[in-house]
Amino acid sequence: MNIINKVADMQKISKHEKQQEKTIGFVPTMGYLHEGHQQLIKKARASNDIVVLSIFVNPLQFGPNEDFEAYPRNMERDEEIAHSLGVDYLFYPTITEMYNGERTTIIKVQKRVDVLCGKHRPGHFDGVATVVMKLFQIVMPDSAYFGMKDAQQVAVIEGLINDYHLQVELIRVDTIREEDGLAKSSRNVYLNDKERLEAPYIYRALTSGKEKFLQEMSVSNAKDQIFNFLSKNTSGEIEYIEVLSYPALEPISSVKPGETAIIALALKFSKARLIDNIVFSY
Amino acid sequence: MNIINKVADMQKISKHEKQQEKTIGFVPTMGYLHEGHQQLIKKARASNDIVVLSIFVNPLQFGPNEDFEAYPRNMERDEEIAHSLGVDYLFYPTITEMYNGERTTIIKVQKRVDVLCGKHRPGHFDGVATVVMKLFQIVMPDSAYFGMKDAQQVAVIEGLINDYHLQVELIRVDTIREEDGLAKSSRNVYLNDKERLEAPYIYRALTSGKEKFLQEMSVSNAKDQIFNFLSKNTSGEIEYIEVLSYPALEPISSVKPGETAIIALALKFSKARLIDNIVFSY
Repeated sequence: MNIINKVADMQKISKHEKQQEKTIGFVPTMGYLHEGHQQLIKKARASNDIVVLSIFVNPLQFGPNEDFEAYPRNMERDEEIAHSLGVDYLFYPTITEMYNGERTTIIKVQKRVDVLCGKHRPGHFDGVATVVMKLFQIVMPDSAYFGMKDAQQVAVIEGLINDYHLQVELIRVDTIREEDGLAKSSRNVYLNDKERLEAPYIYRALTSGKEKFLQEMSVSNAKDQIFNFLSKNTSGEIEYIEVLSYPALEPISSVKPGETAIIALALKFSKARLIDNIVFSY
Repeated sequence: MNIINKVADMQKISKHEKQQEKTIGFVPTMGYLHEGHQQLIKKARASNDIVVLSIFVNPLQFGPNEDFEAYPRNMERDEEIAHSLGVDYLFYPTITEMYNGERTTIIKVQKRVDVLCGKHRPGHFDGVATVVMKLFQIVMPDSAYFGMKDAQQVAVIEGLINDYHLQVELIRVDTIREEDGLAKSSRNVYLNDKERLEAPYIYRALTSGKEKFLQEMSVSNAKDQIFNFLSKNTSGEIEYIEVLSYPALEPISSVKPGETAIIALALKFSKARLIDNIVFSY
């Protein structure tokens, strides 16, 4: 495995691999790799000649009061994991390398962001879209692997790919969960013992909300169900519970069979803000 | 010469040409090709294996009260010109082809646009940056040719290329002028006879402003000189006269030898809004 720190080096490598008609699978991450990331890497490894993993904690997608500085990092362990899973190139640039010179533009996301996390993290998805566009231009992947835990991120990146006719196929990868159902996340380390015991109720709330929705075909009944379930079983503060179309993320005004929906929520514990969702056709 | 209407076809062609290690020179235009455009095509032809010309009147860069509908078009003549100058591919998509499905993002230009035309055409350069990003992803050029008459556009696109690490070299091409000095522009057809006689004073005003600047190294004296010159010799309404650094387009707070400046102005005649500029090192 080669570690690449420079944008120009990564571009030269990708150009060369593509000239050899190799396919490039790309896994963009912020590091601190958990099993969710590992699943993305495995999927990329199974379907491509070359696998590129990027680790870059992108300041542009953190709000002023968010956890950019505190975001967990462990490069040594990440390198071992990447190596063991057969990553060919680990792209690990500095902030100055990625944001060189004066930044003159930003990609402003105008749809799919006035709901869910986008509503509560203004500018977050602009930062995501901007850095993903940069990474795509650097790595030039054929396929890019994203986890469905961040379902809104997937929806935004699918919009980005369509908007700019990017020749990248986005591969949606199912959320990886602990045995008790808690979605794997770098931020789970922030949970205290009591919260860790409560956290599995997030997924149970989602599945019970989905059942309610399928039974009664009512958005508000499903939301009530989840709200009551979470209030009873956790000490977390509910930031949002939403039932929307997917990936357009619009309100479901009339429930039409054959459509795809997302039920998503964010729950704030003392130090950890956790998100989870279920996407399903009905 | 092949005329290509579909994004997917153009991408297939560019991919194929690049796999053959051909260099692609790209000239993006809105059509109604004048000698300025022709100069861009000639430059592209001289330095590349393949020349792609695009003709697309981009609705996103026109304001609600601007001339999108009235913008001059003459596809038959453009085809002849493109063919005669050795263009290999004329990319000529419809609006629906370029803006397919729901547009979810826009590239917001945050620097270099609060001055000159950007100040007077809010959103214009967002539309330009967005469509140029799209075109670059479709055509995948090695070099792209832009005329310096639109010097602010060049500055914005240079920022875009840097921001996203685009593997495109922007080639600045000098403004082509009529014998009397008037910069070639598709919008010159809007001038009436009297205005056409006055219009050459725009360039004379710029050169005299540059001389003043070089003599006295004073931004305000140069601007006064141009203002008086234009007021005396034309019936047009002065929209702006500015002297700025180039390409950052910032105020010149202290005049330091070795820097590059732009003197630019916009003049409104009854139906035509004309722009022109001089960029020079001092």
